[in-house]
Parts: sequence; structure tokens; C-alpha cells
Amino acid sequence: MGCIQSFRQCCDQPKNTNVRISLPAVCFVWQLAMIILFGFFIRYNAESDVHWKQENKNISRSDIENDFYFRYPSFQDVHVMIFVGFGFLMTFLKRYSFGAVGFNLLIAAFGLQWALLMQGWFHSLDPMDGKIKIGVESMINADFCVASCLIAYGAVLGKVSPVQLMVMTLFGVTLYAVEEYIILNLIHARDAGGSMVIHTFGAYYGLSISWMLYRPNLDKRLNGSVYHSDVFAMIGTLFLWMFWPSFNSAISYHGDGQHRAAINTYLSLAATVLTTVAISSLSQKAGKLDMVIHLTFTTTSVGTAAEFMLMPYGSLIVGFCCGIISTLGYIYLTPFMEKYLKIQDTCGIHNLHAMPGVIGGIVGAITAAAASEGVYGKEGLKTVFDFTGKWENMLPTQQGGHQAAGLCVALCFGIGGGILVGCVLRLPIWGDAPDDHCFDDELYWEVPEDEESIPPILEYDNHIRNQAG
Amino acid sequence: MGCIQSFRQCCDQPKNTNVRISLPAVCFVWQLAMIILFGFFIRYNAESDVHWKQENKNISRSDIENDFYFRYPSFQDVHVMIFVGFGFLMTFLKRYSFGAVGFNLLIAAFGLQWALLMQGWFHSLDPMDGKIKIGVESMINADFCVASCLIAYGAVLGKVSPVQLMVMTLFGVTLYAVEEYIILNLIHARDAGGSMVIHTFGAYYGLSISWMLYRPNLDKRLNGSVYHSDVFAMIGTLFLWMFWPSFNSAISYHGDGQHRAAINTYLSLAATVLTTVAISSLSQKAGKLDMVIHLTFTTTSVGTAAEFMLMPYGSLIVGFCCGIISTLGYIYLTPFMEKYLKIQDTCGIHNLHAMPGVIGGIVGAITAAAASEGVYGKEGLKTVFDFTGKWENMLPTQQGGHQAAGLCVALCFGIGGGILVGCVLRLPIWGDAPDDHCFDDELYWEVPEDEESIPPILEYDNHIRNQAG
Amino acid sequence: MGCIQSFRQCCDQPKNTNVRISLPAVCFVWQLAMIILFGFFIRYNAESDVHWKQENKNISRSDIENDFYFRYPSFQDVHVMIFVGFGFLMTFLKRYSFGAVGFNLLIAAFGLQWALLMQGWFHSLDPMDGKIKIGVESMINADFCVASCLIAYGAVLGKVSPVQLMVMTLFGVTLYAVEEYIILNLIHARDAGGSMVIHTFGAYYGLSISWMLYRPNLDKRLNGSVYHSDVFAMIGTLFLWMFWPSFNSAISYHGDGQHRAAINTYLSLAATVLTTVAISSLSQKAGKLDMVIHLTFTTTSVGTAAEFMLMPYGSLIVGFCCGIISTLGYIYLTPFMEKYLKIQDTCGIHNLHAMPGVIGGIVGAITAAAASEGVYGKEGLKTVFDFTGKWENMLPTQQGGHQAAGLCVALCFGIGGGILVGCVLRLPIWGDAPDDHCFDDELYWEVPEDEESIPPILEYDNHIRNQAG
Repeated sequence: MGCIQSFRQCCDQPKNTNVRISLPAVCFVWQLAMIILFGFFIRYNAESDVHWKQENKNISRSDIENDFYFRYPSFQDVHVMIFVGFGFLMTFLKRYSFGAVGFNLLIAAFGLQWALLMQGWFHSLDPMDGKIKIGVESMINADFCVASCLIAYGAVLGKVSPVQLMVMTLFGVTLYAVEEYIILNLIHARDAGGSMVIHTFGAYYGLSISWMLYRPNLDKRLNGSVYHSDVFAMIGTLFLWMFWPSFNSAISYHGDGQHRAAINTYLSLAATVLTTVAISSLSQKAGKLDMVIHLTFTTTSVGTAAEFMLMPYGSLIVGFCCGIISTLGYIYLTPFMEKYLKIQDTCGIHNLHAMPGVIGGIVGAITAAAASEGVYGKEGLKTVFDFTGKWENMLPTQQGGHQAAGLCVALCFGIGGGILVGCVLRLPIWGDAPDDHCFDDELYWEVPEDEESIPPILEYDNHIRNQAG
Repeated sequence: MGCIQSFRQCCDQPKNTNVRISLPAVCFVWQLAMIILFGFFIRYNAESDVHWKQENKNISRSDIENDFYFRYPSFQDVHVMIFVGFGFLMTFLKRYSFGAVGFNLLIAAFGLQWALLMQGWFHSLDPMDGKIKIGVESMINADFCVASCLIAYGAVLGKVSPVQLMVMTLFGVTLYAVEEYIILNLIHARDAGGSMVIHTFGAYYGLSISWMLYRPNLDKRLNGSVYHSDVFAMIGTLFLWMFWPSFNSAISYHGDGQHRAAINTYLSLAATVLTTVAISSLSQKAGKLDMVIHLTFTTTSVGTAAEFMLMPYGSLIVGFCCGIISTLGYIYLTPFMEKYLKIQDTCGIHNLHAMPGVIGGIVGAITAAAASEGVYGKEGLKTVFDFTGKWENMLPTQQGGHQAAGLCVALCFGIGGGILVGCVLRLPIWGDAPDDHCFDDELYWEVPEDEESIPPILEYDNHIRNQAG
Repeated sequence: MGCIQSFRQCCDQPKNTNVRISLPAVCFVWQLAMIILFGFFIRYNAESDVHWKQENKNISRSDIENDFYFRYPSFQDVHVMIFVGFGFLMTFLKRYSFGAVGFNLLIAAFGLQWALLMQGWFHSLDPMDGKIKIGVESMINADFCVASCLIAYGAVLGKVSPVQLMVMTLFGVTLYAVEEYIILNLIHARDAGGSMVIHTFGAYYGLSISWMLYRPNLDKRLNGSVYHSDVFAMIGTLFLWMFWPSFNSAISYHGDGQHRAAINTYLSLAATVLTTVAISSLSQKAGKLDMVIHLTFTTTSVGTAAEFMLMPYGSLIVGFCCGIISTLGYIYLTPFMEKYLKIQDTCGIHNLHAMPGVIGGIVGAITAAAASEGVYGKEGLKTVFDFTGKWENMLPTQQGGHQAAGLCVALCFGIGGGILVGCVLRLPIWGDAPDDHCFDDELYWEVPEDEESIPPILEYDNHIRNQAG
């Protein structure tokens, strides 16, 4: 800890928020690097290649069986969650809407390109020609990967520069791809909705970075909402809430897998709303509700287990518990974390993603371990848990253990990776805001004049009335 | 009437808006009840069960023929209408955006669970094991059912407590399920877009409740919009307007049924916009348009007849008339209803849903009665009107009569049910607002500080310029 | 030029913005005309007609092979772009949100009906019965056609009356249908994403009109944004940005065509974001970003070439260049055009649509000319470039020439049509705003009272506390 403290002091120099050289440089160079790497590595997969149609005729397959038609509607919903959902969820700060939506778009646009490469190298490298073959499923996976970085952004919202965010995303995507490969391929855990690989990893990655970037003298005057900014945030909240069923079913297996994942998520989210409202009302004097707590609506713990036979009542129970725990987290844990653990969590991602992610992982492990041939059928077990190839003889109880192991890996990567990247981001070269100018769009954006300065509307009505009369 | 008046007086006691006990109690207990009932009754249907894939192989059916792929994109559009559409449509009030969006989400989240149970008991109880089997179509139907309660919420917006809303939803969903069973199964009326079962029922249910809860001394200072709140309301309006084609086609039969329903709705809505603008401009001095009237854009009368062979020009005619009638309703009927009928209709749902619903029901009856084998073909009549089983020998003219009967049932259930539930809601135990604090988020929400209190933005630019220079 | 100037002076009479007669008249009469024309000409196509199901059984085709399921999700995304995307993109002006969203809806609702007729006469008139047969693809094409008029609206935003907009749309749709017929059918150019027929035509049409309506004494006090209006504009920007993949793939051929178009657009847009941010930051003092420039995010140049084998890196390169050119256009070209060319372009559509459209057309021509059998395969070339019928022996290099010719036609129609229509719109009968009242909703809308007039929230808390205490 002493070493960390001294490193901190060494980094605490006067801040210069001018990013006129660093930001364009990072954007240009990295985008050029993407173009070159895409040129070497990335090609269309069989279903998006022009030869598909020809091949189709040969085997008399219908055009509609292209994976595009199974997944594209879900992809677009996920896309909306990434850009509108996460973007507008973070507009609740009174003077940071530009940064919330704008930087969200910037890092997501970079992150998805890098994710296509990283995930491609690990998952879909064609051994024949050494190329990565992409299709609609790759696009969904890239969006998923980006989601973990946007979750992490929530913890440091308003306290970092766009250059820091780009660096955070570069490392975040890299760590994600490695962690995902270990959890899904090496450990053979299942994680349809990404409770472990996306939420747990992303949240602890962000919290660790926030811990490393702790600002003891943070000025909190702008760290709050106004009436209209809360309504904007509700746009983000709702689009996240509504589209979780698409998120969790987007890469489930075709047919009943996607169908069941959507149902489970739909039910779980409904239950979450009721318990969130209950706890929120109980916790306040006079039973008033708190809009900030209501961002918790976006919480889902039916991630890992989404495509399992969780049963409708099981989904409700998960949602019920998740709503209680997340809301209590908002009320008791966030202040505790800030005061004693030195973690400043702007959006409360510990409640929104970290705890639900861990719960989701545990639910997944239990549900997997409890899976029986009676419920799933012999074939069902194979399909749902992918007991094929070298995993052919695996038992559900073993699978439960592997799920738990996967959760631990996600935690380690999140915390470990966050601390390392946090060290890098403390260097005084990234143009981040001084303590008394955090949460202020003024630093990185040309902010238009204030509303009060709208010129008084001229008395035009009289003029018209005279003409009409 | 005298009896009602005396009941009213008995209920008019000083208001206590503290819902700290009642709201959490209702949320917790009802959610627990849902979990228990779901545990006893609700299971996945064949297409979302893990055995579907296996069965698929046996009969060499493609994965894409899962009902999920026919309906899920429409379901997500309907979901957006329910939560963003209805939620944001009601944000036009200057100080009730939290209540509009937040309570909308709360009652929809509860309502859809209860709807799955109620509709399941009436429609999809499996006689083999006594379980309700749910799939994507059940989710759409649950969202539809909830829509009727959200329509009713529009009439009482700003004047009721969240506990009252929960009670209203509990009874509303119950009445809806019974009414729907009578109209669709016993009377055998067709109602693809729900003009009768959703719009007519929901609107008259809400209006009757509003009549029972009449407040003679209502303070209207906050019952109006500001510039920004109207723009927020346009978000809701547009998402409703755009997604009606999905709403009306969501549960039509596969293939041309869904296709035709979408086309008819698309055309009808376009025509509505033009006549709404025309009447709105005609009615104002200097031809100015009124934003509140423009919420009428969300109106659709192509509900019942959506999947019929209404013909493109028929859809335009329906939209044309509907726009005129709804807009005239806004201008003349709403003030009349408030003054003489003692019905305070905050959102004007009589124009948005009641009249379009009734028109839609009548159009449906006429179109059904006029259906001929020349247009539909023998098989077409069977498919569209479901002339199978004991209805095999029914004639289109008879069907027209059944449609009209269905409309009457919807009206009776709406008005009768609303009066009964209104009685219950007048009891002085629900924590509703006093007359001089209606339409104010302050009562049930922690409202953040005002915009004016944003600290002046510091002169940071100079600081940067000095550094850069 | 002298003749134009004298015509201008002849038109410059005192303005009367009362549209109480003209607007309702135009809406009513044109809508009635639509109904009559639809009655004579428009019918359901085979896939939305009730006989489809029957025919289906005969040839044992699955219901899912209805074109509805291939295109409806994309159609709804396009629909959202037209109404929310274009509508909210234009809300950035501080006092013109009603006009932006409301008039956008009005002209789109009229335009899509007229487009169904015009495009039907040119493209899908059934020679057997002289009727136009419409289905989901016609709806997408009608939305596309309307998009070109909404692009044109961007140039004249805030400076024209709703009646002028209706006239502009009437002529715009007519010109579009002719131009589209010439480019796609006579010249046989391919244009999946509409770089030429939609963007180039629409943008130059709008710019020419704006040139004809040049206001030398335009009052610019209201021609700017406030903080909240920029956030509203970001809603539009994001929905456009997210749904371009659906826009470009909506009418591509089934299977790999739609799949590839979505991937190409997805990648191109991501690259555009990074270069836009880079140029935007470079161009400002202290490297601050400009929100208005960020509307450029909505730019896409992968239009024409969307379904070609552009390759993932090719898409990135197109996006890279497009971001640079559009952003530089914002910074240097827009002021230049206003000062020297007398073109006042409110939304900067020259950067958003004109230049990306032209680039897209050129990229399409080059990609087509460079197409080889090695990449596409013999069958692929036929499918992608539609080398069938009388075009059977066409070579890719020839196709490249035809693409270039198509681009020229789009330019000519845009500029020529715009000048003609601009002449008509200069007549002093349309109720447009005087120079000192442009960009003000007050002229055509009943604007609600200002936010400052919200009555102070009463001290209700104390009241509750007393009760609770």
C-alpha cells in the first residue's frame, strides 16, 4: 500500500486538460492500425460471402436459414443498448451529458473494431488461411465485449479524459478476450448473457481503476442530477431494461435456446422492478422514491443461466433477490465503499453490474449443477451445456464446478487488470481533469450558451392578428 | 347519484401521501404471490422447452420455424411501446415526468406477470397437467393486457398514488382477461390489434375511474406542459406511432396475416397525421398548431380490422376519419366532459383511445360483414375469421354481428369495472394527493435541486489557454 | 443571374405567416387525392394477400419464407430513422424542436403515401390489371424516398412554412421517383444504400432550394443550440447512427446480400466516429470537441457499395475518409458556402449527406469496376450486379461506368429540380417566416409558457414529516 501511495503522489502533478494533440493522435493512429490489421486478418464468413447463395442452391437450403435472420433483430437491440442504453443511462449528471453520450460512442466505436480482432484471434481464426471470418454473431460478440468497457466507464464517469478512456478500452478489450477464451473455451463454462465475462469482469475492472485513480479532494458540486437530466437518464434505463431479453438471447443456440433465454430475462426483470421500488420506498423518509436508485431497474442477474431450464418461477426468484440486493447496495454499500475502500463509483456500477453479475454467476453454477436428465433430456443436456467433443462425458455437477471456476477467473481478471491499467492511467500525461473540475462538460466540449440567454420571444402574435383581422 | 355523492363525502378526509408502508407491502406481497403462483402454474411451452430441438430433428423441421422468429421482432417493438411509448407520452406535464415514466414501469412490470397468469388460466391451460405453457405469444399478450391498464393510467395521471395504481392494475388485468375470453372465445369476435379488448376497454375503464375520483377543486397550475416536457412527450408519441404496425401484426397469423396487418396500419397512421394537422391548424387563431393535440398522432383505428382485407385505400379512409374525430374530440369533447360529465381526463385518452377504439370496432364489424368469398377465397375466409370447429358454418354477415357484440362487451366491462374499482380507490387509505398537490412529482419522489442552482461554470478556458500558449 | 435577382425582388413582399387556410386546405385536399388514387391503383401484393397462405400449401412452402420475415425488422429500423432519427437530429436549434419533429412527421406521412404511388407507377405496376401491388419492400422504398425529402428539409430548417414543406415534398418525391427509375432501371446502376438516389439527390435538392430562398438579412440569434437541445439532437444522431446497417441492408437481396451490407455499414460507421473526433479536436483551441460537428457521426458513405464485396478493411477505409472529409466540410465549407455561394444550410447537410453521397457513389463505381470473377464467382457477379436479361453480357468495368453515370443523373436532378422548386417556393403566398423570426417555433406552434414560470414547489415535505412524525 505504501508503494501505491508514493506512486500516487509522484503522479499528482498540476493537470493540463488540453487533449488537442493526444486525442487526435490516438484516434488517427489506432484507426489506421485497425485498417491495416483488418486488411491482413479479417474477411467475411461463409454466410456473408457472395458464394453462400450459390452453395445454397446446391444443397437446396432456404435463404431464410442464414444466421442473419436468426440474430440480426437481437443484434440491433443490443446495438441500441450499447449506444443509447449505456450512453443515456449516464446522462443523469447535471453537466456531463455530452461526455456521457459522446465518449460512450467514441470508445464503443473503437472498442468494437479491436474486439473483432481480439475475439477473432482467439475464437474464429480459420486454420486454413489464417484469416478471421466475421458475421452477425461476431458483431454481437464485439458489442458484448464493448459493453464490459462501458460498464467500467460508469465507475470513472466524469473523472477521466477521453484519452484515458481510449487506453482503458484498449486494455479492457484485450483482457476481455483473454478472459473470455479462458472461461468459455478452456474451462468450458457456459455464459449466454455474460454475467461473468461481461458484467463481473467489466464492473470490477472499472472499480479497480477507480480505486487506483482515487481523488481525496473530489469536488462534488456537479456530481448530481437535475430534473431534466434524470428524465434523459430514464431513456437509457428503459432501453437497457427493455432489451435485456435480446441481449441474453442474442448468442444462445437457435430455436428454443433463444426463445427460453428471452422469456427468462423478461420475467426476471419484471420482478426486479417491484422489489427495487419496495426497498427504495422503505429506505426513504415518507416513503418517497429516489430516481437514482431506479437506475437499478437495469440490473439483471439472469445472465449465465438465461438459456438454462431455470423455469419461469426461478427467473422471478432471481429477479426478486437481485432487486433487493442491488437497491440495498445503493443505499448502504456505495457510501461505505467511498468512505472506507476509497472507491468513487460515479454510476454505482457495483450495484448495477458487479453484484448482479456475481449473483448471476452463482445462479448459473447452481442451476448447472442441479440440471438433470429428467428436466433436460439426454439430448437437451448435450445441446444446452455443449457436452460434445472432449467434454462428452461431463456431468452437470462437474459443469457446476466449472461455472464457479469461470466466475473466479472473471473476478481475478477484473480486479487484477483494473489495478494494472489504473497504474498506467495515473501517469500525468493523459489530460484528465483537476479535482475541482470533474463532472463538467466544459473541459472537453464546446458547451453552448445557457438556456437563460434565449432572447425574449418577440410579440409576433399581435402582428399576425392585425394582418388576419 | 345521491348514494354516490354521500359515498364521496364519506371518503373525503384529509390526505396523507405517506406510502412508506403500503407501497413496499403491496410490492413485496404481490411479487411473492406471483412467485408462488408461477411455481404452481407456469411452465415453458413446447417451442421454448429444451426438448423442442430434439423433436425438430425427428420431423426434419428447420430451427427458423420456431414461433420466436415469427414474433420476437414485433414483441420487442410492442415492449418499446409499452415502456417508452406510454411512459414518455405522459411526460408532457411540467412536473410529473418521474411519475409518468416511473409508475408506468412499475405497474407494467407487475401487470405483465399477473396477465400471464390470468390469460393463461383462460386461454392456454394445458388440460394434461393443469399448467400454463408460455412462449413469445404469451409475452405479447401480456404486454397487450398491460397496455389497457396504461391507457387507463392516462386518465388519472397525476391524481393517484402508486398504491392506487397497483390496485387499479390488479383489477384491470383481471377484468381484461375475463372480457378478452368472452369476446374472443365465447363470442368468437376477431380483434388482431385490440381495438375492442385493449383500447375501448382500457379507455372506458380509466374514464370511469376518473369519474369516480372526480376532484371539484383540482388545482391545475401544474396541469400543463413546458417546452422541454413537450419534446420528451414527442419521444413517446413517435415510438407509439412508429410501432403500431408491429402492435397490430404481432399476434396475427403467420405469413400474409402479419404482412397485411402491418401495411394497413402503416397507411392508416400516415393519413391520420394529415387530418390531425389540418383540424388542429383550423381550430386555432392564426392557424398555429398545438403540440398537445399532436399526441393524437398516436391514435389508430385500424385495430380489429388490421388483418382483414381492408384494402390500402380503406386503411387511408379509416385513418382520415380517425384523425378528424380524435382532434375534434380534443378541442370540444374534453372540456365538455370535464365541465358537464365530471370526468377529468389528464391525457385525453377519450380522444386517443376510446373513440378510435370504438371506431375500430365498428370498422371491424362492417369489414367482417362485408367479407366475400370473391375477395378472400374460401380458404381465406376460414383462415382470417377462424371459421373452424363449431364455427365452421358461420357466415361473414353473422361474424359482423358477433364483432358488434364484442364491442358492447368491451364497453360494459370498461364502464362497469371502472365504476366498481373507482369505488374501491375512493377509500381514504391509499395515500393519494390532496387537490392542491396533484401533478407534482414532489409527493412521491425525491426531486433533485433545480436547474438554476447549477454553480456558474468557472473560467477554466483561460487557464487552459495559458497552459497551451 | 440578373433574371433570378429580379424574380427574387418581385417575391420579397411583407410576410404573412398565417397558414390557417392554406395548411388545412393542402392537408385535406392532398389526403383526399391520395385516397382516391389509392382506390384506383393500389392493392396488396401476392405475399400480403389472403390467397398467399393457400398457395403456400400447394407448393409446400414454409410461412417463414414470406418476404415480411426477411425485411420487416429492417423496415422498422428504417422507420425509426425516418421519424425519430431525422426528427430529433434537427432538434438541436434552441427554439425549433416542435417544428423539427412535428413538420418532419407531417411531410414524411404525406410523402410516403405519394411515394407508394409514384414508385409504384414506375416500378411495380402489374401489367395484367394496371394496379400497383405493395408489400413490405414497397414500404421500405417509400421510407427511402421520404428520407431524401427530409434530408432536403435539413437545409431549409427553420426558414420555411409547413405549406412550403408540403410543396417541396410533393415535387421532391416526384423527382425522386423519376430519377430512381432512370438510375436503377434505364442506366442499370446498383444502389443498395441509396448513396446516389437518396443522399446525393436529396442533399443537392435541398441546397438548391436553400440557394433560391437565400435570405441576406437572416437573423441568427435563434440559429444555435442550448445544452438540452444538443442532448435531444444526440437521440436523433444515435438512432441514425445505429440503424444505418438496417437502412443499407433493407432492400439488398436475401441471405448473404443483407448480411454483408449490414457488416460493411457497421464497420464503416465505427471508423467514421474516430476520425470525426480526431478532426474535431484538432480544429478547436484546447482540443475541445464540438457537439454540432458530432452530428457528422450520422454520415455514411457505404451506401451504393454496401452489398458489394467491399471487404471489412475497405469499409473501414471508406469510413475513415468520410469522417475526415465531412468534418473538414463542417469547419471550412459551410461558412464558405454561406458567404460566397449564398447557400444557408441550417443542418449542414452538405457535409452530412451531399459529400458522403458523392463519395459513396464514387466508391460504388470503383468497387463495381474492380469486381472480378475471382472474388465474386460467376454466379456471384450475376446476383450482386443483376447481370440478367438484357444486361447478361455486361462486364464489371462497364458497370462501373454505369454507376458513374447514375451519380451524374442524381446530381442533375437534385440541382435542377431544386432550382425549379425553389422558384415556386419564392412566391409570396406560402406563409414563410420573415427574416427576423426564423428558427422560432412561436410562428407555427402554440408554445407553452416558459420553464421559469413553474410555480415554486410548496413546502409539502414539512406537512408530511409532521404527519409521519
